[in-house]
Amino acid sequence: MPELAYPLASLTHHPTPTVVTVGSVQIGEGCPVVVMAGPCSVESREQTLTTARAVKALGATVLRGGAYKPSTSPYGFQGLGIEALEILAEAKAETGLPIITEVMDPRRVELVCGYADILQIGTRNMQNYDLLREVGKTQTAVCLKRGMSASLAEWLQAAEYILLEGNPNVILCERGIRTFETYTRNTLDLAAVAALKSLTHLPVIVDPSQGTGRSALVSALCRGAVAVGADGLLIEVHPAPEQALKDGPQQVTPEGFATLMTELAPIASAVNRGIA
Amino acid sequence: MPELAYPLASLTHHPTPTVVTVGSVQIGEGCPVVVMAGPCSVESREQTLTTARAVKALGATVLRGGAYKPSTSPYGFQGLGIEALEILAEAKAETGLPIITEVMDPRRVELVCGYADILQIGTRNMQNYDLLREVGKTQTAVCLKRGMSASLAEWLQAAEYILLEGNPNVILCERGIRTFETYTRNTLDLAAVAALKSLTHLPVIVDPSQGTGRSALVSALCRGAVAVGADGLLIEVHPAPEQALKDGPQQVTPEGFATLMTELAPIASAVNRGIA
Amino acid sequence: MPELAYPLASLTHHPTPTVVTVGSVQIGEGCPVVVMAGPCSVESREQTLTTARAVKALGATVLRGGAYKPSTSPYGFQGLGIEALEILAEAKAETGLPIITEVMDPRRVELVCGYADILQIGTRNMQNYDLLREVGKTQTAVCLKRGMSASLAEWLQAAEYILLEGNPNVILCERGIRTFETYTRNTLDLAAVAALKSLTHLPVIVDPSQGTGRSALVSALCRGAVAVGADGLLIEVHPAPEQALKDGPQQVTPEGFATLMTELAPIASAVNRGIA
Amino acid sequence: MPELAYPLASLTHHPTPTVVTVGSVQIGEGCPVVVMAGPCSVESREQTLTTARAVKALGATVLRGGAYKPSTSPYGFQGLGIEALEILAEAKAETGLPIITEVMDPRRVELVCGYADILQIGTRNMQNYDLLREVGKTQTAVCLKRGMSASLAEWLQAAEYILLEGNPNVILCERGIRTFETYTRNTLDLAAVAALKSLTHLPVIVDPSQGTGRSALVSALCRGAVAVGADGLLIEVHPAPEQALKDGPQQVTPEGFATLMTELAPIASAVNRGIA
Repeated sequence: MPELAYPLASLTHHPTPTVVTVGSVQIGEGCPVVVMAGPCSVESREQTLTTARAVKALGATVLRGGAYKPSTSPYGFQGLGIEALEILAEAKAETGLPIITEVMDPRRVELVCGYADILQIGTRNMQNYDLLREVGKTQTAVCLKRGMSASLAEWLQAAEYILLEGNPNVILCERGIRTFETYTRNTLDLAAVAALKSLTHLPVIVDPSQGTGRSALVSALCRGAVAVGADGLLIEVHPAPEQALKDGPQQVTPEGFATLMTELAPIASAVNRGIA
Repeated sequence: MPELAYPLASLTHHPTPTVVTVGSVQIGEGCPVVVMAGPCSVESREQTLTTARAVKALGATVLRGGAYKPSTSPYGFQGLGIEALEILAEAKAETGLPIITEVMDPRRVELVCGYADILQIGTRNMQNYDLLREVGKTQTAVCLKRGMSASLAEWLQAAEYILLEGNPNVILCERGIRTFETYTRNTLDLAAVAALKSLTHLPVIVDPSQGTGRSALVSALCRGAVAVGADGLLIEVHPAPEQALKDGPQQVTPEGFATLMTELAPIASAVNRGIA
Repeated sequence: MPELAYPLASLTHHPTPTVVTVGSVQIGEGCPVVVMAGPCSVESREQTLTTARAVKALGATVLRGGAYKPSTSPYGFQGLGIEALEILAEAKAETGLPIITEVMDPRRVELVCGYADILQIGTRNMQNYDLLREVGKTQTAVCLKRGMSASLAEWLQAAEYILLEGNPNVILCERGIRTFETYTRNTLDLAAVAALKSLTHLPVIVDPSQGTGRSALVSALCRGAVAVGADGLLIEVHPAPEQALKDGPQQVTPEGFATLMTELAPIASAVNRGIA
Repeated sequence: MPELAYPLASLTHHPTPTVVTVGSVQIGEGCPVVVMAGPCSVESREQTLTTARAVKALGATVLRGGAYKPSTSPYGFQGLGIEALEILAEAKAETGLPIITEVMDPRRVELVCGYADILQIGTRNMQNYDLLREVGKTQTAVCLKRGMSASLAEWLQAAEYILLEGNPNVILCERGIRTFETYTRNTLDLAAVAALKSLTHLPVIVDPSQGTGRSALVSALCRGAVAVGADGLLIEVHPAPEQALKDGPQQVTPEGFATLMTELAPIASAVNRGIA
């Protein structure tokens, strides 16, 4: 993996850590750990507002929620689209939480930028280069999830596509890779977090919900992620996971999230960061 | 993998094999094996025309050539774009070979349809659902490559996205999956070909160039692919692979392609198909 | 993968193909394709003799059958041990077929050598170096299966352990590697066969039964294996697979084996080998 | 993964955590984190004693050191054997640290038991069932490393082999699995630690040295392991890693180990355990 492959993302070329600012939240090396939480998908106004209020009260500083959902099946739930974006806007207005939401289509980047504080590029689109270029033309923060079978080198080069277009606000998100193990939905690669800290100046966050696919494992992996050096967490929270339209088994309840935050706090302190 | 996950692609629901017709070429179960050959990337008029004439003379019936190239690095060769499409059009006019070329951006589907007889969806875009929907709205044949870590179920559901939009002309292309083995670029999964023949009515072809990343292995894997039941092959041919702008090590020379075709013929006969 | 890592196994150092002779059967480059067939496990005298007669009549030239079985669970069927070896001896006496059977424990190598014409080292023991050394001290042919996550380099170095002890009669057997795909039990890596032919002088055979885990795919993959250059096949045959004590779903019936042999013959001819 | 597959290892059948006692050290749920440290291989008396004194002074409570080494190449360093065991005995006599060392051959279990407080079963032998049975017949503690492509279910069933023979003193050690990622030597699966805690009563430790193959990542992954719930750590320490006969790049220096222990302490406190 020659460093020249990703000069803009490289720590050698840019030895100062990048801190991405989203509203009043700062994400990056040296900042408190940022907790982004909320439902996998925006399913209704009530579900989203309830969750937003709960996660805000418990210490989350960014609200996540899917409006456009990549569904393996064309018959699966595809997200509520603009209606979901409007719901997220309302949740933001009420709670003050900035929004992270996924964009999948280059033709919809402008629209989603009207609502999102952080644009998420999902695992299936990590090498969708036309989409990367399009979000690179904005100045909105971009959370680039690792492709499910992407090497670190490929991931950093995907980030380079965005940086090269002029958008420096890139956050990398480890969300598990695909392996032979089926007990967990993916294999969360926490060594990647530590490795990235030596390769790039970009912030690195972790998604243990997608990474494990099992709500019972999420709190432990949040602790692990912060202990290895993650700058933030992306956590799926749903008021009634068993009724979720998508990915119920990996979403924690608000009660579970409360416990998670309690267990996380001493780890964040142990690495001298606190939680944002 | 419940069959209801992909009813339109399922062999149970549609027990008659689909034959995709491209010009005078027919691709599918019961038809002769279709050989699609040509350069990885269109690099110049001369390179492309030379290759087109050579592969035509040696028995290929479809010309492949990349105009828009997904490059891991933003600094890598991205393809000649429209200029390449024009060169392919000239090659088609001269040789009569229909064209297969990749489309990556939903905004460019209409443009590429003006030149391509078969639209290729590359491995990085197998789950780029907006792109799948867009090519699904056309009636142009679509060659859907397997995602580098896609299960058969995910692949068939990706095909379902295209079929559901109304385009029945879908061809599946096995091109190797990502594993721990690094001697070959990917691990070509020929069992997938046999498995798909029991799961779907869609034609299945194989790309041993991408699948192995080593020109020395391509001929053997072409034989293997046809022996297990592939309906066609996608083969990279370059007049001077060591000078190729991309993927030189996996491209065979016209001489190598001649040998390959000679070695392939008895296998095609052995499975009672011949070569188109 | 430096060649010095396995000088005795290397094709460069030993450019003449090794032909392993087992009774009247010759296995290696330039010889007819050797079909080794029989039950996964020896379950009873009748099951084994019935199968032995059937596969002999249909053209197999080596009888396979497990006496000591590596079972994932300690509560699973572990094989009949010496009783099974005696049954295999009887089957050999009646049919004249040489025997291939697995040895797992270095303390049992001498015992198994008293019955086996080919000692099988299973996938779980490919890097059981004390076992490799022990079989290396004999002159009995050894069929070394690929470890389920072994690279080609590791596999060749495992063979080197045997060769270095003085036993030149090593046969490599591709049996599928472990990947994310779950439709098949393993991912059969037929490119490995072609690759090995350029790296080593040792014979290479393929086990599509373990490789796919699905009897319906075995015949197609046998064809594919021979088309890419395999010197032999290892095929599980059971008179009543649904009653098998182990691995029923991947065993073909004698009727299925008859069809398989019929379909295989033209492929063997197409690569100018015939079937032993 | 039916629980009946491993009743003796199952948490459901045995809801009380197993604590394995080795000398004055206790390993398991609820105990302080146990740090096992020392050289990958015993290379000399001086190297081993120097390292033993250093790790003891810095807080390690078990000494690791390989006497019999599984080497991918037969030409690689195979360990000093009995000479190494004698050196370990001297180190133990001087420092009081109990010893963990690998056993590979069932014929050598009795010998190694004469020196080892914990028998290590390496990743290549996780499914070497005759070896598992042999160590199961002793009462010496066994550290069973995960096979490099073993699922959790397979791993627990391998432990069951040992338990079923009558040895209850089994410790599981996550050491990374084999994936497509090559930046790290293996992919350390910390979710497995959390998952095991819900599946089994056996202690679970983590080996970040083998797990990452890079000394620069070891400290971060030790923190991560303890944060997710590991009961102990296995860490390779060498006085001069660049001169190590094996696996130099993954061994930390005594200075590196000192830093590691300093960074680890607050994490161990954060999960209310301390370091043994």
